This record gives sequence, C-alpha cells and structure tokens, in this order.
Amino acid sequence: MPATRLDGKTIAAEIRGEVAEGVAEFVAQGHSAPTLAAVLVGEDPASQVYVRNKERACDKAGIGSRLTRLPADCTQTQLLDHVRSLNEDPSVHGILVQLPLPARDDGGSGIDERAVLDAIDPAKDVDAFSPVNVGLLMQGRPRFLPCTPHGIIQILARSGISTAGRHVVVVGRSDIVGKPLAMMLAQKDGPCGPDLANATVTIAHSRTGNLADVCRTADILVAAVGRPEMIRADMIRPGAVVIDVGINRVGDRLVGDVAFAEAETVASAVTPVPGGVGPLTIAMLMHNTLTAARQAAGESSK
Amino acid sequence: MPATRLDGKTIAAEIRGEVAEGVAEFVAQGHSAPTLAAVLVGEDPASQVYVRNKERACDKAGIGSRLTRLPADCTQTQLLDHVRSLNEDPSVHGILVQLPLPARDDGGSGIDERAVLDAIDPAKDVDAFSPVNVGLLMQGRPRFLPCTPHGIIQILARSGISTAGRHVVVVGRSDIVGKPLAMMLAQKDGPCGPDLANATVTIAHSRTGNLADVCRTADILVAAVGRPEMIRADMIRPGAVVIDVGINRVGDRLVGDVAFAEAETVASAVTPVPGGVGPLTIAMLMHNTLTAARQAAGESSK
Repeated sequence: MPATRLDGKTIAAEIRGEVAEGVAEFVAQGHSAPTLAAVLVGEDPASQVYVRNKERACDKAGIGSRLTRLPADCTQTQLLDHVRSLNEDPSVHGILVQLPLPARDDGGSGIDERAVLDAIDPAKDVDAFSPVNVGLLMQGRPRFLPCTPHGIIQILARSGISTAGRHVVVVGRSDIVGKPLAMMLAQKDGPCGPDLANATVTIAHSRTGNLADVCRTADILVAAVGRPEMIRADMIRPGAVVIDVGINRVGDRLVGDVAFAEAETVASAVTPVPGGVGPLTIAMLMHNTLTAARQAAGESSK
Repeated sequence: MPATRLDGKTIAAEIRGEVAEGVAEFVAQGHSAPTLAAVLVGEDPASQVYVRNKERACDKAGIGSRLTRLPADCTQTQLLDHVRSLNEDPSVHGILVQLPLPARDDGGSGIDERAVLDAIDPAKDVDAFSPVNVGLLMQGRPRFLPCTPHGIIQILARSGISTAGRHVVVVGRSDIVGKPLAMMLAQKDGPCGPDLANATVTIAHSRTGNLADVCRTADILVAAVGRPEMIRADMIRPGAVVIDVGINRVGDRLVGDVAFAEAETVASAVTPVPGGVGPLTIAMLMHNTLTAARQAAGESSK
C-alpha cells in the first residue's frame, strides 16, 4: 500500500483560516490589525517571490503588511537604521528581513547578516532567529516558535501522529530547522503539548558515517539538508513517517531531500515537495505575527 | 581488560593551573583580578559546601571571590536588588546564584528562580544560564560555555577521545547538561574544535522506551539523569566511553548514574563518581570568570 501523502497545503490553509479568525477577533476587540514589515534588499528573483507570497498570505489573513525595498548596494548602517525605525514603530508587530542578503560584488565586507538579524527587537522577531528567542525556546518557554519546525509539528499533530516515546531522526543541523526541531521534540512539555514532544531524538548530518543505518532507526525521519533526493528507500524503515524539508531546484523542477517515489513504497506517510512542509512555514509566520500583536497588546500569547 | 578510569580530578587540576596562569598574566597586564560574586540564600548544607568549594577554587586560581549570604526568608525583591547591584559593580566579573533557592514553608509563591537568573547581566552570567547566552551557544557563537558540558568535552579532549563522526547518546534532557551538551557536540565548528563536535547525537530520557537498545548504539554514552546506577552493563556497547554526570547520595555514599563496577568490565573508559565530571564543573567556572574579566577589559575571549 503506498504511503499516505501528508498534504501540507491543506493543513496550512486550515491554520491560515484559524489565524484569520484570530485576527478578526483581535480587531473586533478594538485593536488595530497585526502588521508584518518585510525588508527586501536587492532584486533576487527567489526572494521577490517569497516576499510576495508572504504579502499575499498577510492579505488573506487580515494582517497588514508593509514592504521596504532597499537597493542591493545599501550599506549595513542604512539597513540597521531601517530595522531600528521598525523596532520603534508601534504599528509594526513583526519584522522580517528576507534572506539571503545580496552578495557583494565589490569584494568589500558587505553586510553582516547576523548583525542585522540581531538588531531586530526580540518582541517583533517573528522568525525566532534572535539569540534570546532561541534560548527561551531551548529552555521550554518560547516567545515565538520558529516557523518551519513549528510547521512540521503541526503537520504531525493534524495528521494524528504522536512523537512521544518514538524515535525521531533529524538529518541536518541548521539553526533554522534541525537544531530547534530537535530541541522542541526532545522536551518534556513541548510547545505543542506532551504528545508532540517526548521523542528520543537523533541529530544526524554530513559527518554521520553510517547515515543509512541511523536513518533506518527512525520512526519519524526528517530530512533538512538541502541535497536533492538524498534519502532513498533503503534509508527508511518500513512504516516510518518521512518529513521532507528540502526545496531544491533541479533544472526546472523543485525536488525535496527525499526520493519521493521510492519513499512512497516504504513509508507509512510522507510529505511531498512542493505542497508539504513549505506552505506551513508561511502559515506559522502568520501565526507568529498575530502572537506578536497579542503580546504587544498585553494579552496572553496562546 | 578493565576500562581506563578517566581521572577528572587530575584534568580539573590541570585546567585550574592553566586558569591560574591566565589570571597571573591578566593581572600582570595591569588589570585588577577577575572576581566572582556568589549569592547564597539560606542555610542548605549542600549549597554551603558547593559555595565553599568554589571560593577555595577562586583562591587557588588567584580569582577574587565575594560571598553574600541572604537569609532564607529574604524576598524576591531583595534578591533581585542584590543581583542588580552586582550587575552594576565594575569590580565584579562573574555572578553566581547558588541553586536551589530555599523552598518556602509558608505556602506562598516564594522566589521565582528563573526571574532571578534572568536578572543576571549576560556579560557576567558565568553559568551560561541566561536565555541570550543559551541562544548564542546554540547558534555556535557562545559568550560562555556552560560549565558541566564544557567540562565533559575537556575530559574527552584531554583523554584523546574525539567525537567527530561518532555516535554520542546523552541520557537526560536538562537545561544545564543534556540539551546544551547535545547542541555543542552536534555542531560543525564546535566551541572546542571540529574533533570535539561533529558527533551524531541522540537525546534519550525517561520517555525513551527501549533505553537499553538506544544506549547500546553509543560510541560515547553520557548519563545525566540523577538516578543512582541506572546504567547497567547490558546498556553499554563493549568498548564504549562512558561519562557519568550523576551525583546521587545513597545513604552516606555518593554514586553516579552508572553502575561503575559493571561499566568497568564493558567500557573502554569510564569516569568515576566522585572524581570524574564533578571537579570539572568548578574548573570551567573559573575559566568562565577569567573569560568574563577579559571580555570586560575588552580583550578577545579566547
């Protein structure tokens, strides 16, 4: 029997609907609409698409959006000044600097991406990239949940898949996905409840020697590496759940880190690419923007 | 052949000697001595011993120490005020609030331990407990390394044991040991170099069903649970390295989380209790206090 296809698009739409309801309720209480400010530096086509998709998602959820475009040759000082002006603007609840920042052709030092992210007020850091927000997450008292890991947990939750007592193998150790997801799933009282935490978690990566063996120990296998179709059938335990975080452009196709057709024959459930984890990331960004606005209004965050 | 006993006492003495040299050099450059301020609330006998040991270690390293004793019934406001006065005192480089804070007998809410720790200036947070320092660690750019995990890595490093490409199983998911150690060992460019990072890391805990099976996959097994002698011979892969972080009082004996006599017959190397990881924690606290003083003096931290 082929694996169940975990439909991220439908789940994301459901969450965006819930966020829209939350926004409507928040506005009905007399607050102004939650507002997300995006900063786009340069003309990178992929970044323009991402920012446009986020604007559209804001519109549909009733969240205000503001886009600042800065030229590719803007200085770090100009970018930092703009971020600080957004920090101080009470009508902005969430701030997002679209990554990557453009590479510098002049051989100069360019912009220190980390310095720019660090300049965002943690209370408006809806990507949850700032060190204090990362630390709060790791200590089990998050201000915001990082969007992609939270999206993965939502896919599991809404597909009736519990992680408690199960073995999750996360392939990839990025700051954005692998590390925070591992921390969230290993915790006792996870941010999405004990059934979506309490996992035995293994972090694997490029230096893991016997990667296939390690992957085969997984009840739930998460691939977040950025290498097209590196997870093959023989790396998947029969009946495992496979979550594919990769979005790789190969020619004119988008493919994940998982060889989907192979995975489908072995796994019990698998996320497709596109239409799997991807749509959740934006949905959880909307969720965080509403959370930021609620927190700013002094309401409880949940 | 019985396992090598990893002698934490000797390694800690070596590190404390290096810190003492660093302190002497720092003072010879015209700086005043690094100074650690400890705050002890109440009369808990174990806490008094810990604080006394830390004072003694400061003395031996040429680090100044100050102890403030507050009565068991002091208020949270009094404690916070005292922490803030230490934050503002430029002659204090490191601040340590001895845990646990005393339980309240009056049934009141007592002191919020987390609020007190959060009040410590991150630049003086030599335990590395504050969220911003935890986040910086997780992002691979630590200000201070948490003492016990760093001590474990030092034991491995100075015993010629590399973690790169090996499977480390950490049993225990505490904020102080399990979680930060897992993050440090899984990183690519770990804080102690790539040979002491780059591990495949599994976090196991009380909800891990098949704990013995998981432990037996470890090349390096770290027990940090606080359950006397829970790690038995059949949970250890022959030839594995076993690190015992537990310090449990059983009657008038101190025992670890590992059944030492059993482990010795299976492992290639094992830390005893006492005299294993324990002494390293204070040594790394001394190291962090010197680092804090150097950072305050505007020097590089390494």
